[in-house]
Amino acid sequence: MPRLKLTLEYDGTQYVGWQVQPNGVSIQARLGQALEQLLGERVSVESAGRTDAGVHATGQVVCFDTERTLPLKAYWMGLNRFLPEDIAVVRAEEVPPDFDPRRWSHGKRYRYRVSNKPSRSPLRRFSHWEVFAPLDVEALRRGAAHLVGRHDFSSFRASDCQAAHPVREVRRVVVQGTSGDELSVTVEGTAFLKHMVRNLVGTLVEVGKGRRPDSWVAEVLAARDRKRAGPTAPAHGLVLEEVFYGDGPPPRTPGSTADGEDEE
Amino acid sequence: MPRLKLTLEYDGTQYVGWQVQPNGVSIQARLGQALEQLLGERVSVESAGRTDAGVHATGQVVCFDTERTLPLKAYWMGLNRFLPEDIAVVRAEEVPPDFDPRRWSHGKRYRYRVSNKPSRSPLRRFSHWEVFAPLDVEALRRGAAHLVGRHDFSSFRASDCQAAHPVREVRRVVVQGTSGDELSVTVEGTAFLKHMVRNLVGTLVEVGKGRRPDSWVAEVLAARDRKRAGPTAPAHGLVLEEVFYGDGPPPRTPGSTADGEDEE
Repeated sequence: MPRLKLTLEYDGTQYVGWQVQPNGVSIQARLGQALEQLLGERVSVESAGRTDAGVHATGQVVCFDTERTLPLKAYWMGLNRFLPEDIAVVRAEEVPPDFDPRRWSHGKRYRYRVSNKPSRSPLRRFSHWEVFAPLDVEALRRGAAHLVGRHDFSSFRASDCQAAHPVREVRRVVVQGTSGDELSVTVEGTAFLKHMVRNLVGTLVEVGKGRRPDSWVAEVLAARDRKRAGPTAPAHGLVLEEVFYGDGPPPRTPGSTADGEDEE
Repeated sequence: MPRLKLTLEYDGTQYVGWQVQPNGVSIQARLGQALEQLLGERVSVESAGRTDAGVHATGQVVCFDTERTLPLKAYWMGLNRFLPEDIAVVRAEEVPPDFDPRRWSHGKRYRYRVSNKPSRSPLRRFSHWEVFAPLDVEALRRGAAHLVGRHDFSSFRASDCQAAHPVREVRRVVVQGTSGDELSVTVEGTAFLKHMVRNLVGTLVEVGKGRRPDSWVAEVLAARDRKRAGPTAPAHGLVLEEVFYGDGPPPRTPGSTADGEDEE
């Protein structure tokens, strides 16, 4: 029975998030419907991680088994005809029967976009957190440097985060001032706690506003206390850009994806 | 009586274009409503140029007279409260009584965005022309070089273009390959004929696809015949980024804005 891996791009604006919810339409549900139309059977779809309401993706990874044997293009161009215009398959591959999109993940890259105009920006309202106070990009960059490495990220996890351990490894945090009035924060790590990227960005923006020195980021991290960090940045600035895979699952270490759900 | 100049950003997706139309809601109409709410009087609003249905702006310029004397911030932050989330004022200034947003314009800059992934991209569906065939950015760039200068742009004007003369000066055409799968074409000129930027981009994309050599752009330009050019690129990839002003109107020459309406 073929096992398929799909890479998805979606605009999360209209959805309650990746996972099926009672209170609205999820991306998982819309994908399930489209697959049923394509395959004539119901399939169970797993993902590399949940994304919250309003969060976008250019590289979400999902996986399912099917009785049908269709050419790969059917799961790409073919499936796109059954999907709404805000969800699309960008790649389809066949994977080994034991492939698990979460446990086999070697890491993920998220990108968070911040608009920094003095008043609201209609063209960025679904893609950027609009921060009106002027931000010092260099200060954000210095703050971000404190986050790189293997740390206990308890200060940056949501209060209802289900992960077994709070240790994660952040490989890279890159702050780009893409133009005078916007910036982006790219975070790459082995795995993430719930709302971790959004809490990191909320904290860095406090530093960028000049309310706190960059050393405060290190203090918050060391405190292992959610109440010490900055506010959670809004969901709609976040994009899950890529999930990294190798030939098999990564070695099991505390803080690897095998440790628990991540959800942004 | 004060004369006000406002710079607008808007997401053109939901509108029939700048100008009031019988068949739907225009940006001009929504701005007029908001101004009436703010001022308690109807005002007549002129713009630097019309934008078509679906075309966006970060720097549209509009102008009106009012009996009221409010602080400038009322026309910026205050007016934004009466405007829908897809339209915003980004700057408000008082201007001399003879200021004319079209006749005083010394030029405009437009940016056109092209997505170049092999299949559709949900996050770019309102902001990019999605071209699936691979584009050669260098070829586009060579084609673009033929357009710079003062030319008769008859080959690139819409068949119903109302301008008196077809001569315009293009100061700059910059093709940026912003990442591996997207590019933008920035066009700066004194003034534009109807659909000129979209027709230029449609023609350059033919060259980028390898269907025509870059010298074909020069041939099309020399032919002064709309039937020779490429297709009109779709409206939603276009942004009016800036309208340039000096201390007064530019010298009147054929091809200046005084020559006729431009409309993208």
